[in-house]
Amino acid sequence: MENNRFNTGKSIIDKMVSPEVFDHMSNMKNISADFWEMIVAFGFGDVYAREGLSLEKREIITLTTLITQGAFDQLEFHIRAALKVGLSQNEIKEIIIQCAAYVGFPKAVHAMQIAGSVFKNME
Amino acid sequence: MENNRFNTGKSIIDKMVSPEVFDHMSNMKNISADFWEMIVAFGFGDVYAREGLSLEKREIITLTTLITQGAFDQLEFHIRAALKVGLSQNEIKEIIIQCAAYVGFPKAVHAMQIAGSVFKNME
Amino acid sequence: MENNRFNTGKSIIDKMVSPEVFDHMSNMKNISADFWEMIVAFGFGDVYAREGLSLEKREIITLTTLITQGAFDQLEFHIRAALKVGLSQNEIKEIIIQCAAYVGFPKAVHAMQIAGSVFKNME
Amino acid sequence: MENNRFNTGKSIIDKMVSPEVFDHMSNMKNISADFWEMIVAFGFGDVYAREGLSLEKREIITLTTLITQGAFDQLEFHIRAALKVGLSQNEIKEIIIQCAAYVGFPKAVHAMQIAGSVFKNME
Amino acid sequence: MENNRFNTGKSIIDKMVSPEVFDHMSNMKNISADFWEMIVAFGFGDVYAREGLSLEKREIITLTTLITQGAFDQLEFHIRAALKVGLSQNEIKEIIIQCAAYVGFPKAVHAMQIAGSVFKNME
Amino acid sequence: MENNRFNTGKSIIDKMVSPEVFDHMSNMKNISADFWEMIVAFGFGDVYAREGLSLEKREIITLTTLITQGAFDQLEFHIRAALKVGLSQNEIKEIIIQCAAYVGFPKAVHAMQIAGSVFKNME
Repeated sequence: MENNRFNTGKSIIDKMVSPEVFDHMSNMKNISADFWEMIVAFGFGDVYAREGLSLEKREIITLTTLITQGAFDQLEFHIRAALKVGLSQNEIKEIIIQCAAYVGFPKAVHAMQIAGSVFKNME
Repeated sequence: MENNRFNTGKSIIDKMVSPEVFDHMSNMKNISADFWEMIVAFGFGDVYAREGLSLEKREIITLTTLITQGAFDQLEFHIRAALKVGLSQNEIKEIIIQCAAYVGFPKAVHAMQIAGSVFKNME
Repeated sequence: MENNRFNTGKSIIDKMVSPEVFDHMSNMKNISADFWEMIVAFGFGDVYAREGLSLEKREIITLTTLITQGAFDQLEFHIRAALKVGLSQNEIKEIIIQCAAYVGFPKAVHAMQIAGSVFKNME
Repeated sequence: MENNRFNTGKSIIDKMVSPEVFDHMSNMKNISADFWEMIVAFGFGDVYAREGLSLEKREIITLTTLITQGAFDQLEFHIRAALKVGLSQNEIKEIIIQCAAYVGFPKAVHAMQIAGSVFKNME
Repeated sequence: MENNRFNTGKSIIDKMVSPEVFDHMSNMKNISADFWEMIVAFGFGDVYAREGLSLEKREIITLTTLITQGAFDQLEFHIRAALKVGLSQNEIKEIIIQCAAYVGFPKAVHAMQIAGSVFKNME
Repeated sequence: MENNRFNTGKSIIDKMVSPEVFDHMSNMKNISADFWEMIVAFGFGDVYAREGLSLEKREIITLTTLITQGAFDQLEFHIRAALKVGLSQNEIKEIIIQCAAYVGFPKAVHAMQIAGSVFKNME
């Protein structure tokens, strides 16, 4: 049954990232197999896989909390995931602009620079 | 034209809260008329009024950032606004549950207690 | 097997709080049964129940992170739990004093006031 | 010489608060005499007493950091101290307004409400 | 009139940075012209341009909030701006030292390293 | 007597890092001799040197607060110090895993990647 939670998580990640990105993420198991299991089974299997909110709306939550807490090293990953599950570039910019009013301009400026760079690399 | 920005902001607030709540909010002008003007003209007129994201999605952003930054004194206001612009009680609970994974359980537990109390008072 | 995770979590909570406190905590299920399940099965069953660190050391982590993130509404609960799993009043004061250097005096002062009040109520 | 650091700190606090407020602060020594000593000798004796910035500018720093970190339980104390060392009510409002742009409106609104209440109580 | 707000903002930025730095900042308009407009018209035009606090005191606020929220990627920009509007290198070091007591040593150490590097590059 | 506080701090640092690392740290005195003095005399002499908690438990506090506040630039230093004063690699991973539940996965993932890289470099 633990396997089920992991597999559910894995199937959600498949909707959010390419197989290459998943492989890269899974390097975590070489540091801590338990933590990797927890990320997939809990983070994606128990949380993202829940009904009640679309993956698109879940990525609005994720982008907002990353910007608010200044966790910029994971912003590129989730900007790409957000685009994959259905948010547009313009919606992502809108999220960042609203964050300017709610978390202040310094973090919003940082986020917009990262978004600009991700969007440019995708052209 | 500044008047336009204020009026645009006012018309957005009207979609989010009752006239009584707006009156209560506007007590801020007795402390600082400039700050009140800025809240309405910038926060609601320049930001919430923008196209590109529905008010419903904007409230997902707001609830998430309030929980992430621990700004719990304004959570009740925005839970009520979120319900008014179209989020369901269940969607609000889902936002909080996803926040547990992203900002940790202490803040999520606090938010869920506030949500529970708001929902109960509305029965 | 999910039952196992919940039961494991429940058995850990039993070591940390009195039955009355557990009953109070479990009111969460009236707001969101899923979130309550997640708190017990994941937070206590998957995390606190892990080998590799004593409950005493885990409470050092918890007190420190609550103080650092300013989550003071849950500090009393964990000060009481910390005493129950083996930390002394003096060790808790030391944790707060070290936090003063690492998170600044405002949060440390707030934490020390809460600790002082908990210790006084226990006399 | 430790005595010197404490006495220097005490003499700075005397410039910032009334004797009654100092007495109230010093209740901390009943919880932890060491922490009280550290607050006065380090916080005020080593830091506030330094040359190079006026007490007025130091209170701009303190108000800003309290608002940014959401340490609102100590804001009233420092608003009163700020007024005592020379900041005007208007300057304090300006600090809060600038914080709106840098830390977001939720914390700035909370701070302005506290400032409004302090100013009203002083009339 | 919106033009007025933007122009007011632009004239404040001119007092804080060199034309080259302004050109660099304005690359933001290639990512989001609306956000760039908002930064200049609101951040500088509505906030920094206000009477009631000198630019020098406003930079004390900005440096303090950046250090407190860990927004280090924008610290160099504002250390340079702070020097341009009248703060001395010594005053900037004092701000960082006071932050050590209020936000903890980790962020203060990081800030002092950045300040040291900026000051060295200016020699 | 100030000398005593500095020397006490120095003797604690000697237990936590190699002489080469201490030399590197002490470059801070070229930026601000006063701040360097404060780091050693207060941070290590007044705080780490206190009785009541082992250095091992103090490093649990330090690692937890650094992860919670996102102060990742100083995490490698303290992971190495933690190992030197007696924590095992496994205990450090457990601290990070518990932080996942308390501060959210983004910061925990970042911390685990840094830990993995430190451990690998030590092989």
